[in-house]
Amino acid sequence: MDVAKRAGVSKGLVSFALNDRPGVSPESRERILTAARELGWTPSLRARSLSTRRSFALGLVVGRTPEVLGADPFFPSFIAGVESILAPEGRALVLSVVPDEEAELRTYRSLVADGRVDGVFLSDLRHNDPRIPLLVELGLPAVTLGRPEGLTPTDLNPAGRSPFPAVSIDDTVGIAESVRYLAGLGHSRIAHVAGSASMLHGSRRRMAFDDAVRAAGLAECQTIETDFSIGAGAAATRRLLDQDVPPTAIVFANDPMAIAGLGVAHELGLRIPGDLSITGFDDINFARYVYPPLTTVSTTPAQWGRAAARTLLFLMEHGSAEDVDLPAARLTVRGSAGAPASAAIATGT
Amino acid sequence: MDVAKRAGVSKGLVSFALNDRPGVSPESRERILTAARELGWTPSLRARSLSTRRSFALGLVVGRTPEVLGADPFFPSFIAGVESILAPEGRALVLSVVPDEEAELRTYRSLVADGRVDGVFLSDLRHNDPRIPLLVELGLPAVTLGRPEGLTPTDLNPAGRSPFPAVSIDDTVGIAESVRYLAGLGHSRIAHVAGSASMLHGSRRRMAFDDAVRAAGLAECQTIETDFSIGAGAAATRRLLDQDVPPTAIVFANDPMAIAGLGVAHELGLRIPGDLSITGFDDINFARYVYPPLTTVSTTPAQWGRAAARTLLFLMEHGSAEDVDLPAARLTVRGSAGAPASAAIATGT
Repeated sequence: MDVAKRAGVSKGLVSFALNDRPGVSPESRERILTAARELGWTPSLRARSLSTRRSFALGLVVGRTPEVLGADPFFPSFIAGVESILAPEGRALVLSVVPDEEAELRTYRSLVADGRVDGVFLSDLRHNDPRIPLLVELGLPAVTLGRPEGLTPTDLNPAGRSPFPAVSIDDTVGIAESVRYLAGLGHSRIAHVAGSASMLHGSRRRMAFDDAVRAAGLAECQTIETDFSIGAGAAATRRLLDQDVPPTAIVFANDPMAIAGLGVAHELGLRIPGDLSITGFDDINFARYVYPPLTTVSTTPAQWGRAAARTLLFLMEHGSAEDVDLPAARLTVRGSAGAPASAAIATGT
Repeated sequence: MDVAKRAGVSKGLVSFALNDRPGVSPESRERILTAARELGWTPSLRARSLSTRRSFALGLVVGRTPEVLGADPFFPSFIAGVESILAPEGRALVLSVVPDEEAELRTYRSLVADGRVDGVFLSDLRHNDPRIPLLVELGLPAVTLGRPEGLTPTDLNPAGRSPFPAVSIDDTVGIAESVRYLAGLGHSRIAHVAGSASMLHGSRRRMAFDDAVRAAGLAECQTIETDFSIGAGAAATRRLLDQDVPPTAIVFANDPMAIAGLGVAHELGLRIPGDLSITGFDDINFARYVYPPLTTVSTTPAQWGRAAARTLLFLMEHGSAEDVDLPAARLTVRGSAGAPASAAIATGT
């Protein structure tokens, strides 16, 4: 252990000092803490890394209903990416699915109390996310998927930034591209079936949609908020299409809702894309196999999982890690969006 | 630590007492536990683990490519069911996804060597499954999803049965029902897109298909073997429909392949179910939202996960557990299968 060598003391004394246990003179403690700081250790990581109690496991606590795991392939694909990095390293993934925020916070506490994981992935970031200060308090290394927002000054690290490295994919580019693409095809009534506004990515995609609609000079743009579930996507599509003047295109905030939207449109006898254009988000495995194949934004969740796992392992090894910005999620054009029938008539095609 | 102060003993003694180690008088132990309880402490899982050598975690090693996790909602739904039982019990699920059998067997060994799990779920049983004798050798409690086949006498327990309790869903009933239903609608050219024959459930569903075809007195029945992946389902459908005399109905061994089959049929301009009937297997969340909604066999993987988790917990608690036979998976009739157009003409409807 370099801290011991640098401070000129035994490993045992370093451990005692960093764990705030008695029997360490003030001078030794100060020397040890200085050496640790100079070597780039953060207070939270020191104790854990010096401890022999490493679990060699990483945790993912998913704060959604268990059904979401089965219904939205994002998480399984993300987990697959994480596993592809952890397995060769001999690390395991500890997975917990919890129904509400209270159970979620309790789970992080017990993962730490039980020494079950060495670090965690924080997904589905929320506004003023209570998990950030909790993990700081618990001293548990973490990587956030995306950058947290609304942190209070006490949550920030000395450099005024999030205490945890963020692995991010800019998802606003893909939403903006979807709207631009649809507007370019001649659509003027574009609706958005949004995800939960309580989640950062839900509200961020919605804002990106609003911005893009304004930028395209379109007036009408409806948004329906959902919980991201496939059933809610079907219901929202029905509501949108049941209007006197329905939209000619719908931008969905995830693929399962978009695929449900395709189903509803087919059931109503609409031609896709002639009568209704549909775009999705995530590019899940099913997207290219439905008919018409889904025009969607490709977020490559497995790649996200791999990058997050590498970053968390690096953080645990070195005490700090840089933010990672993955290439922005871009629109993949397939068959589910095209010129609206009215525009086709107007242009004589 | 306030418990020591409150109980009037040293911190070391508190640690010994909470870890169930010798050298603590019954009076001191009682005083310490009372003080701890009064201060709101519960013995940490680590303390419990140290005393009982338990990890309080269960393992699931999935021997498929990571992509399968994201592409087939069976596993995520099964895991969600497992989690819904483990979470309230304060147990965690340790998940490993391994690419081949060698990595799989190595993973079981290290899970045991590292004391990371108290028991495991064995899914995707194979013929002469090498995991069974390995787990017997390792002394790791396990529950098998379905009954293993081809065990050698040395693998069997003294009663001549599998050494592990099995939690099973009879999936042959649903396949037989699918074939009977299609034959009853007037189909005589029914094909099967089967899963991998190396997995018990792949070959079992295929045998059930062959039996049902014979029982229905049908001569023609093609089977194409796949790896259960959605892409293989699409390719198999193309191959079947590209023939001079294509089938009028296809029984798919899982829903992702059936949904890909729907997509291929739509792309070829076939009407579903008029030109082609399709049935699936598993009744994943997407099944009811595609168009036409998928007629499929409902296996309720989440229920399977719950039953498997309960059985494994019971086994670990009591040392033995009974086999559990869940209700047979039955056909759920929706819109993707109907009378063939030729039969409709023949009967004048």
